Amino acid sequence: MDSKMVVTPWEVKGDMDYDKLIKDFGTEKIDETMLKRINKITGELHFMLRRKVFFSHRDMNWLLEKYEKGEKFFLYTGRAPSGPITLGHLIPWVFTKWLQDKFGAELWFQFPDEEKFLFKENLSLEETEKYTYDNMLDVIALGFDPKKTHFLVDTKHAGIMYKEAVKIAKKITYSTAKASFGFNDSMNIGAIFYTAMQAVPAILPSVLKKKNIPCLIPLGIDQDVHFRVARDVYPRLGFYKPAILHSIFLPGLQEGGKMSASDPMSAIYTTDTPELVKKKINRAFSGGKDTIEEQRKYGGNPDIDIPFQYLRIFFEPDDEKLKQIYDDYKSGKMLSGEMKQICIKKINKFLEEHQKKREQAKDKIKEFMFKD
Amino acid sequence: MDSKMVVTPWEVKGDMDYDKLIKDFGTEKIDETMLKRINKITGELHFMLRRKVFFSHRDMNWLLEKYEKGEKFFLYTGRAPSGPITLGHLIPWVFTKWLQDKFGAELWFQFPDEEKFLFKENLSLEETEKYTYDNMLDVIALGFDPKKTHFLVDTKHAGIMYKEAVKIAKKITYSTAKASFGFNDSMNIGAIFYTAMQAVPAILPSVLKKKNIPCLIPLGIDQDVHFRVARDVYPRLGFYKPAILHSIFLPGLQEGGKMSASDPMSAIYTTDTPELVKKKINRAFSGGKDTIEEQRKYGGNPDIDIPFQYLRIFFEPDDEKLKQIYDDYKSGKMLSGEMKQICIKKINKFLEEHQKKREQAKDKIKEFMFKD
Repeated sequence: MDSKMVVTPWEVKGDMDYDKLIKDFGTEKIDETMLKRINKITGELHFMLRRKVFFSHRDMNWLLEKYEKGEKFFLYTGRAPSGPITLGHLIPWVFTKWLQDKFGAELWFQFPDEEKFLFKENLSLEETEKYTYDNMLDVIALGFDPKKTHFLVDTKHAGIMYKEAVKIAKKITYSTAKASFGFNDSMNIGAIFYTAMQAVPAILPSVLKKKNIPCLIPLGIDQDVHFRVARDVYPRLGFYKPAILHSIFLPGLQEGGKMSASDPMSAIYTTDTPELVKKKINRAFSGGKDTIEEQRKYGGNPDIDIPFQYLRIFFEPDDEKLKQIYDDYKSGKMLSGEMKQICIKKINKFLEEHQKKREQAKDKIKEFMFKD
Repeated sequence: MDSKMVVTPWEVKGDMDYDKLIKDFGTEKIDETMLKRINKITGELHFMLRRKVFFSHRDMNWLLEKYEKGEKFFLYTGRAPSGPITLGHLIPWVFTKWLQDKFGAELWFQFPDEEKFLFKENLSLEETEKYTYDNMLDVIALGFDPKKTHFLVDTKHAGIMYKEAVKIAKKITYSTAKASFGFNDSMNIGAIFYTAMQAVPAILPSVLKKKNIPCLIPLGIDQDVHFRVARDVYPRLGFYKPAILHSIFLPGLQEGGKMSASDPMSAIYTTDTPELVKKKINRAFSGGKDTIEEQRKYGGNPDIDIPFQYLRIFFEPDDEKLKQIYDDYKSGKMLSGEMKQICIKKINKFLEEHQKKREQAKDKIKEFMFKD
C-alpha cells in the first residue's frame, strides 16, 4: 500500500501530514493570536477554526488589518464539476458561508467546468455541464445570500474572464507551470493555460468595480499551488495578493481514512439515502477494539476512528459534547457501534435538511448566476 | 545581412522561396487544372489567382467538389491587431472579398486581440484594443457584405469561443505546440494556449448551426502552422478539416523587398498621404540601372523591381497592361522613374477611395460585430 503523501489539485493520496504541507508549501500556521484576532471581530470562532480544520493561511494578518481599518474584502472559492458532491467538498463552503455572514462579504463562487474536462481523458464537457448544475444545488442549499453571491461558470462567463486570464497568463511561463504543477510535455495546452482562469475570480470584482478590493480564498490545501503561482502575478498587474485560508481534508471512510475516488463506498454523497449512510458508516474504519470485551477493557482510539473524525471535523459543533464522546470512547465506556450510531444520526439529520434545501435550490440558480 | 528564410506567424524574414515553403509545410501548388476548375464556377479568375499571388492550398479539391455538389462553405480569415494596416495586409482580404462575392459565402473575420499582446513583451491590451477598432475600418472599407460578414473579437466573444477552444486544446499537447511553433519553455502559458483560439472560427459556424459546414481559409502562408496543428484535431471532434488558400507576401519597399517591421518607410500604410506614398515609392528598391543611359541600353529587371511587384501583386489587374509595363521596362523603353510614377498613381487612386470608405466605416462597425 502506497502511503506516500501526494497533494496536488488533481490528486490527494497517502498519509496526510499537514505540518509538512505548511512547510512544503510555505504557508503559515493559524495560531492562537490569529484566532483571538478573528474572535474579536466575529464575536465567536467557528468550530472549524477552533479545531484547526482550517489550519493554515497566507496573508491573513494583512487582510484582518485591512478589515479592522474599514476596508471590506470579498470571498472567492469554487468547485471544478466532475462528479457528485461529497461531505468532504462541503467543508470549505460551510465555513465560507460563516465568513460571509460574519464579515458581510460578497462571495464569488467559480465553477471551472473546463478544468476536469482538460485533466481527465474520458470526461466530456457535456458531463461537466451536467455536474455544474448538480453541484450548484449543493452550494445553494448551504444558505448563501443570493444578493451577495455570484456564480461564475468558466465556459459561460469567459466573455468577462478570458481577457483577465490572458493578462495573468502572459506573466506565467511554461517553466513555472511545469515546475509548480509537475507537468510533463505531453500535457495538453488547455490544461497548461487553465491555472490562469482559476486565478481570475480573485481580481475580477476589482476589475469590474475599477478599484482594488482585498480578497480572501477559503479552500482545501490541495488547491494552494494555483495561488502560489498567481500570487506572484497579481501585484505585477496592480492588484492585491489574495489572502488564503486552507482546510484539511475530510478523511475517506475506509483504510484508515484514505481517499479512493474510484470507490463510492469510501465517501458519503449529499444525495445518499439514510440507509446508505448507515451502511457506509457501519463499514467505516474504526479505532475501536475487535471485541466488546477488549473495547471495555482497553478503550478505543478516537484519533484514528473515522466516525469520530466526521463528528470532530463536521457534525458535532459542540466542544463539550465532542469531548465527552472522545473521553467515553477512549475509556471504553463507548463502543464502536455506539460511536457509529451517533455519527449516522448526525449525518442523516444534516442530509435530511440539506436534501430538502437542495430540492428548493432548483428554482434559485438564476438568482445566483452572475449577469455580466 | 541575414537572408535565411524564416516564416512563422510572428516573424517573416529573409529571401522568400515559396516553392520551398510548399515543400516544407507540405501544402499543394495551385495548378492549372485547379484554376480551370475554379474558373468554371466563378466565370473568371481573380488576377491574384492568375498570377499565383495565391499559390498554394490545402484540400481545395475537396472543397470545390463539395461546392459543385451543392454544399456551400463559409470563409474565415483574420487579423491580429498590433499596429496600423499596410497594403500587404490587404492582399488576403481583397481576395476574400472576391470569394465572398463569387461563392455567396459567409465570412467570419477574427480579430484575436490577445495574440500579439501575448507574444510581444511591451504591447498592452489597451493598445491592441485601439488597433482592433482601427483595423476593422480597413476591413469594412474593402466592401464586405455586412449581412454575410461576422467580426469575432477574442476577448469580447470568448463567451462563445473559449468553450470550443478548450475542446481543441485538449487534443494538442505541449510537445506538439513546441515542435510546431518552435516554442521554448520560457514561453508564457497564454501564448501556448493561443493557437486553440485561432482554431475556433473554422468550426464555430458549424457549432452554432449544429451541422457540419465546410470552411475555406484564405491567409498569408505564415499563418499556416496554426492550421497544420488544428487540422489534425478537427476530425477528432467530428468536424471537417478546413480548406486553405495561401498567399505570398507583398515585399517591403527596401533592401530588395525584405520586410522590416521597425522601419515605417518599408511599408505603405492605408492612412498614408499621397505625398508620403510618393516619397516611399520613390525611395523603393528598383530593378533599374544606375543611369538613364544604362537603362535605355540594357533595360531594367522588373522581377526584382519593387514598384513593378506592387503593380503585379496588387495594383494593375489588367494582364495586358501589366505585360506592356514589364516589356517596356525590360527593354529599356521605360525608366525607373516612370515605373514609380505609374505605381504611385495607382496606389494613391486606391488609397483615396479606401480612405473615404474607411471614414464611412466608422458608423458600420456594429453591423459587422457578431451578436451572440
